[in-house]
Amino acid sequence: MIAPENPVLAVLCGADHPPDMAAIEDAAVVRYTDERGLADALAGADALFVYDFLSGAVPGAWHAADRLKWLHIASAGVDPVLFPGLRESDVVLTNSRGVFDDAIAEYVLGVVLSFAKDFARSLDLQRAGTWKHRETERIAGREVLVVGTGPIGRAIARMLRAAGMRVSGAGRRARVGDPDFGVVHESAALTRYLPEFDYVVAVAPLTDQTKGMFDAAAFAAMKPSARFVNVGRGELVVTSDLIAALQAGELAGAALDVFETEPLPAESPLWTMPDVLLSPHMSGDFIGWRRTLVEVFAGNFRRWLAGEPLWNVVDKRLGYVPSESQGGAGWATGN
Amino acid sequence: MIAPENPVLAVLCGADHPPDMAAIEDAAVVRYTDERGLADALAGADALFVYDFLSGAVPGAWHAADRLKWLHIASAGVDPVLFPGLRESDVVLTNSRGVFDDAIAEYVLGVVLSFAKDFARSLDLQRAGTWKHRETERIAGREVLVVGTGPIGRAIARMLRAAGMRVSGAGRRARVGDPDFGVVHESAALTRYLPEFDYVVAVAPLTDQTKGMFDAAAFAAMKPSARFVNVGRGELVVTSDLIAALQAGELAGAALDVFETEPLPAESPLWTMPDVLLSPHMSGDFIGWRRTLVEVFAGNFRRWLAGEPLWNVVDKRLGYVPSESQGGAGWATGN
Repeated sequence: MIAPENPVLAVLCGADHPPDMAAIEDAAVVRYTDERGLADALAGADALFVYDFLSGAVPGAWHAADRLKWLHIASAGVDPVLFPGLRESDVVLTNSRGVFDDAIAEYVLGVVLSFAKDFARSLDLQRAGTWKHRETERIAGREVLVVGTGPIGRAIARMLRAAGMRVSGAGRRARVGDPDFGVVHESAALTRYLPEFDYVVAVAPLTDQTKGMFDAAAFAAMKPSARFVNVGRGELVVTSDLIAALQAGELAGAALDVFETEPLPAESPLWTMPDVLLSPHMSGDFIGWRRTLVEVFAGNFRRWLAGEPLWNVVDKRLGYVPSESQGGAGWATGN
Repeated sequence: MIAPENPVLAVLCGADHPPDMAAIEDAAVVRYTDERGLADALAGADALFVYDFLSGAVPGAWHAADRLKWLHIASAGVDPVLFPGLRESDVVLTNSRGVFDDAIAEYVLGVVLSFAKDFARSLDLQRAGTWKHRETERIAGREVLVVGTGPIGRAIARMLRAAGMRVSGAGRRARVGDPDFGVVHESAALTRYLPEFDYVVAVAPLTDQTKGMFDAAAFAAMKPSARFVNVGRGELVVTSDLIAALQAGELAGAALDVFETEPLPAESPLWTMPDVLLSPHMSGDFIGWRRTLVEVFAGNFRRWLAGEPLWNVVDKRLGYVPSESQGGAGWATGN
């Protein structure tokens, strides 16, 4: 794929434009747009940078994409743009694989330790001015299942193992001898091995196969002492089933960074449930992440101008960058 | 040191007696006592097991210790019993070195991640029903100084390094090439190198040299973005200086598990200060710790009966078990 002379780039963003775009503006006509202006911006555009990566506006404006060749999204998950119109087109889809991995791994280790060390209770007691000693859990030797064996899942596995936990994976295909997970179970048979785990971490890409995979049957299969962590997508979970399972004591807690509806609606019981830790879709958003996201796009933009193969090309049938393909670490090495 | 026939063992405990004492009761006359009965229990006792390890009652009852040979304390810190009367006597002092190391290391990593990921704010926002995205810090590459190079400090260093942090130590003697710390700075020159660190962890034993080492000068030397963690002893810190430094913004936060006065008095400003995380002297108290503490004592008790050298003999001049001496891991191997 070779960029045309004087390419036109549409950038879907909100009020905050992406930083550090000067080099790109020197090499392309850049049309910044919000969701309402997207169709106008797409008409005649050669490429689209979806900087507002949670926007659902692309499908509705797709009819106007009359010469689009490339769509890059500033996130790891591509579900907001992977609709039939894109899937069936020749448009190349790339993502920001690699940016969030280690930050999310730190976040997951943090919530695991928060559960084990009862930190939320400590803070509630502190706020109430109450001194109350408790005994707390160790994390060493505890069994963790990471559902999702992409780069984020792998970073989580390495981090939790370094901290003394025992980690397995769940992915599309069962296998052994994985360098990060050792054993990888088959996601389709989740309920069979869920009873073994103290922590279950959801970080799978959102696809037709994974949507709603954490349902009543899955939660019923967990240990009553297990904690569930979701740093993937809210739609991996049937939220009403999770709420019912927590209320029934089928698992002991949940740390949720992503939700079926974001922001989480005010009426959701999750806000006030004990043993539930909420954060507003920020587990990977380290200080400086927006500049890094633009660096990743800019690296691919330079490759596009030069006619080189793009990084992080998503397999539109699978819904993610296959692990066998050229990885996404190039941006980090300054290439 | 050989135990006499039919030894008499005094056990200082509160209302909760230590568990799993049957084997010891078979081999000794065991006198369980609270603080008020301690002097009576010490008269004629050959050994004292200080199970209530925060009690300050031993000095006041010491006059009655007419044949005591051995004092074992169910803690790592020996400051509550290391008073001149014991120091100048021939009584052998042993501690519970090794029991708490890894649990405290997990706790420290947890509070470091809580600061970096802004978990306390997330919980406050959750309790208020507010969805508010923030960018948060990475821990990878951040510089940590662990003040105290005993087994707990070493476990902390290994754990934080495994999670991607850069760790140095501070101890009695400066040195390089330490297996856990690499560089060890000299504690006496603390203010000189404190400006380099993002996190400062206090875990030194409480001695005449370390008492109040974290004072106004120390806090003034820290980065304004630094966080201070105390899992050692409250008396390592001049609490009023810490409060003033936090109020002045000389450091960015503190996680405190130990205090000059415990329980922390209701009127302490620490309860309600932003960026302060409190817990009630529990960082090492994993579920099962009390049984483990009795196992450690029971192991030494068997060695005492057999006339073998005791584990974890405290150098009463230094105030801790020298790292060169026979270590405290024997209990963990079932010996």
